[in-house]
Amino acid sequence: MEKKVSRPIKRVSRNPVSKPDPGNAPASARWLVSQNSWGSLSTVSLELAGAPFGNVVSYSDGLPDEGQGIPYFYLTTLDPTAKNALKDPRASLTLSEYILGTCGKKDPMNPSCGKITLTGKLKLLESKSKEEEFAQKVLFAKHPEMSGWPPSHNFRFFKLEIEDIFLINAFGGPKPLTVEEYLRYKL
Amino acid sequence: MEKKVSRPIKRVSRNPVSKPDPGNAPASARWLVSQNSWGSLSTVSLELAGAPFGNVVSYSDGLPDEGQGIPYFYLTTLDPTAKNALKDPRASLTLSEYILGTCGKKDPMNPSCGKITLTGKLKLLESKSKEEEFAQKVLFAKHPEMSGWPPSHNFRFFKLEIEDIFLINAFGGPKPLTVEEYLRYKL
Repeated sequence: MEKKVSRPIKRVSRNPVSKPDPGNAPASARWLVSQNSWGSLSTVSLELAGAPFGNVVSYSDGLPDEGQGIPYFYLTTLDPTAKNALKDPRASLTLSEYILGTCGKKDPMNPSCGKITLTGKLKLLESKSKEEEFAQKVLFAKHPEMSGWPPSHNFRFFKLEIEDIFLINAFGGPKPLTVEEYLRYKL
Repeated sequence: MEKKVSRPIKRVSRNPVSKPDPGNAPASARWLVSQNSWGSLSTVSLELAGAPFGNVVSYSDGLPDEGQGIPYFYLTTLDPTAKNALKDPRASLTLSEYILGTCGKKDPMNPSCGKITLTGKLKLLESKSKEEEFAQKVLFAKHPEMSGWPPSHNFRFFKLEIEDIFLINAFGGPKPLTVEEYLRYKL
């Protein structure tokens, strides 16, 4: 006989919010950012003479299906990405719809398989701030493993302050989308 | 009644070469590059004041399961990545094992879920050269859709001339791996 559980069980969504109309650029962009949970974060490489250096990172912009648009990260300066950002905060986060499984048989480079690049500044969050608390909550909700990462590695919370959005989700070139339109949209 | 087809049917491998021992850095790196077929390609942005700009791109380093280690691309200057590279060839290609489905329940940022960043120069291949012919063959084999991409978009073949390899596939930090060791390895 099964025990009854009286409190709601939190879990990562198994039925992600369905794909928005590609004509709705803010909805499409926010969907890509909210539904994905990892991507490539590019910074200016200190070790490689300023080369653009992409690195696989996990991120979260909110609780599952409650994304707010701003990507948060949990990074260690043992890794070049955080080290680079502390010296030069210019960065971009690149995501693909392909990972979500909604591109069917399309090639990942097919314009109708959505892709987005958020460019801006990768900033260290103030220790013990409200925003750091929020970042921890939303990151650990989507990446439960993070709560066990070794304290000796000095992981810290960062966010990407978005300044430009490059979105392709259909034929016809990048979709015009301002940061304000992107952040204002309600999922 | 089905027609019998007498010639062999080419297809993308359904049984990818099994994952090498993470202790074997060249094998592990070449496996990640050969088994993946798309990733994030970062360049120095012309439009965004030199920001590191990642973009989702398809690539190929050889016929399925016959990778040779050098990533080739089919890019159009209608897209910022190719435009950036023609002005400043510094670039990196970032790939994750997560896409291959062999990371199990590990987080994409878990060090034992392999990730690799190849940094170097993104170079346009000489028109009608032997290398361009090879690039077309290996790209179209892994990305059949490419052969139908619109000629008016002026797609051209590029390669990444690798200068540095950043590989993490286990706990204990990046694996030392020279470009020579990487290219010399036979799959």
